Amino acid sequence: MEKNYLKKFINIKRETKGMINIDPLQAGGILTKEARQSLLEWGDGFSVCDFCRGKLDEIKTPPIYEFLHQSLPEFIGADAVCLTHGAREGKFMIMYAIAKPGDFVIIDKNAHYTTYVAAERARLNIKEVPNSEYPEFKIDVNKYEDAIKSIKKRRSSVALLLLTWPDGNYGNLPDVKKVVEISKKHKIPLLLNTAYAVGRMPVNLREIGVDFVIGSGHKSMASSGPIGFVGMKKEWENILMKKSEYFEKKEVEILGCSVRGVSLMTLMASFPQVVERVKKWPEQVEKARWFSEELEKIGIKQLGEKPHNHDLMFFESKKFFEISKKHKKGPFFLYKELKRNNIWGIKPGLTKHFKISTFATTKEELKKVIQVFRNILGKN
Amino acid sequence: MEKNYLKKFINIKRETKGMINIDPLQAGGILTKEARQSLLEWGDGFSVCDFCRGKLDEIKTPPIYEFLHQSLPEFIGADAVCLTHGAREGKFMIMYAIAKPGDFVIIDKNAHYTTYVAAERARLNIKEVPNSEYPEFKIDVNKYEDAIKSIKKRRSSVALLLLTWPDGNYGNLPDVKKVVEISKKHKIPLLLNTAYAVGRMPVNLREIGVDFVIGSGHKSMASSGPIGFVGMKKEWENILMKKSEYFEKKEVEILGCSVRGVSLMTLMASFPQVVERVKKWPEQVEKARWFSEELEKIGIKQLGEKPHNHDLMFFESKKFFEISKKHKKGPFFLYKELKRNNIWGIKPGLTKHFKISTFATTKEELKKVIQVFRNILGKN
Repeated sequence: MEKNYLKKFINIKRETKGMINIDPLQAGGILTKEARQSLLEWGDGFSVCDFCRGKLDEIKTPPIYEFLHQSLPEFIGADAVCLTHGAREGKFMIMYAIAKPGDFVIIDKNAHYTTYVAAERARLNIKEVPNSEYPEFKIDVNKYEDAIKSIKKRRSSVALLLLTWPDGNYGNLPDVKKVVEISKKHKIPLLLNTAYAVGRMPVNLREIGVDFVIGSGHKSMASSGPIGFVGMKKEWENILMKKSEYFEKKEVEILGCSVRGVSLMTLMASFPQVVERVKKWPEQVEKARWFSEELEKIGIKQLGEKPHNHDLMFFESKKFFEISKKHKKGPFFLYKELKRNNIWGIKPGLTKHFKISTFATTKEELKKVIQVFRNILGKN
Repeated sequence: MEKNYLKKFINIKRETKGMINIDPLQAGGILTKEARQSLLEWGDGFSVCDFCRGKLDEIKTPPIYEFLHQSLPEFIGADAVCLTHGAREGKFMIMYAIAKPGDFVIIDKNAHYTTYVAAERARLNIKEVPNSEYPEFKIDVNKYEDAIKSIKKRRSSVALLLLTWPDGNYGNLPDVKKVVEISKKHKIPLLLNTAYAVGRMPVNLREIGVDFVIGSGHKSMASSGPIGFVGMKKEWENILMKKSEYFEKKEVEILGCSVRGVSLMTLMASFPQVVERVKKWPEQVEKARWFSEELEKIGIKQLGEKPHNHDLMFFESKKFFEISKKHKKGPFFLYKELKRNNIWGIKPGLTKHFKISTFATTKEELKKVIQVFRNILGKN
């Protein structure tokens, strides 16, 4: 391999740096200053293992033990926490560990694609609980019970209920308490996927009453990725954190140890600020609602729950769609206009439907976004 | 949670910075200057997804597509490469995808603990091929055939052969060509675990003739962790990279996408230097042999293959062990003496047996290590 050819892999600059970021996928994962410092300090492979005595979660220097056994469980109200490579890996881990191939998992129709793929990898069957469709796409949580009954009638087994809270398309927050009731009544464990919640808004496993809470560091906890966790009730510890028959300290489902690297250090370094920002969640909701109202004034309709309860929102713009049909840049005009105005986060080619998060932006920045939308509509 | 309590998670300094590092786990994962730059540039969660169109390995900006589909496969002589969270995750992925629960995997007795745990997680049975025991611990590769026959006699099925090359204890490089012959004769695929090879020494899947090669970024490719890959022959692509029945672009075994983060950027940024350093492997072997000879002169015996063919070596020191029995710091004396002399990598409490890698150190630095060993022996 020629040296010159390989030069393309070094010194790559990120093109989107410094832009106003309204991408729901990225808004919650922007590092804090402290996390950026820890990146440089702990970047080397296996750096966190300096003082490891055989088990990642028991490392005292740096204080991984305290983080994983005290602070993070307390933060999410869990009896125990297991670190994973991300939310999807956490979902697979639970499904694979507690279900048999062929069992059913009942999921909400708004579930992330990785919920489907995790179930598929675990060789489970999927039963969907529908949403109310256009325009709110709300999950009818009572239908979890119908789903259980219909599967049992066929003499199949339901291993798990899963609810996405909020979902990553509409940012809807379904009535989880009702699903908890159904879960308890039928004695089927309930997994709450909070990849867009923990780190943004208050989530407490014990208060909500679910069996598992899944979180994502790079999605919502100002952390490098990939990293996530499974929070659980005590009764699941023996199954999910089962020790190897060959090596008594090593946990089977995480292959001995999971995020042995710098993502964990950024998750920890951002944690104090994450704890603080969650306290200000009502301000985030207020900002999101205000933004939604402003866009509606210029004819961009917010789908999903209204009034909205989360920073992640789905919009429909028939006007942008009409423009795209005539514009010389076609469906890419919106993306290009926004980029030219230093606004990042709407995928190239989208005009009629797109997602926006207001989480990482100030009201001043959002005013600019609204103004740019207005200008684009005016110009065309 | 109190703010003051949480302060412990920020601004944590790495105690071992700047020390001479002879830890085999860390020697190959020290970042290059270029990787350190990319850390800061790409640290934010989901930063690499800026221009993603639904599949990580197809991202052109940054040039992930070229790295995963051209440069890395060419470097290791594979038809295809799949990114994983590390070597252990790659081993589990292969075992889970190609074997049925209850099948056998035949592994070398020197296999890494995660090989056992990966097989256990995949619900496979393990059959070990023994080593020659003290002092060389060589794997008798001919015994792979005996193992196959004994399992078939019991009417069980062998799904996979696995060889660790080199192993992480003794740094032995068994005769892989012989295992390839046996693998072909019995039509059982062969996985070569090269977590301590790719990135340090030349490895070419096609030339060796194995089905799978497993590599580790944080162990041997100057990368942040966790990250690794599976290199494979074309015929395995359809199984390992099978697409989801629900989402046509998403691969089931990696749950849609694996290392969606900064570790991949460090792996890429270090890659040009890694390609260069592999060309200098003969110098590394020469350095390791010289170091081994020097330690033998002062009564520290190298176990494993001799002359040695890898930078990872296992030593036995009866003298240090004798000292530890009388020393006021007991078995911790060696660790503490080395640390005081700015040398890092022998685990606290070890005196009789310990591992050393000469990979990341210059001959000058190793001369200091030898001198410090000599002084410790002289003083006591």
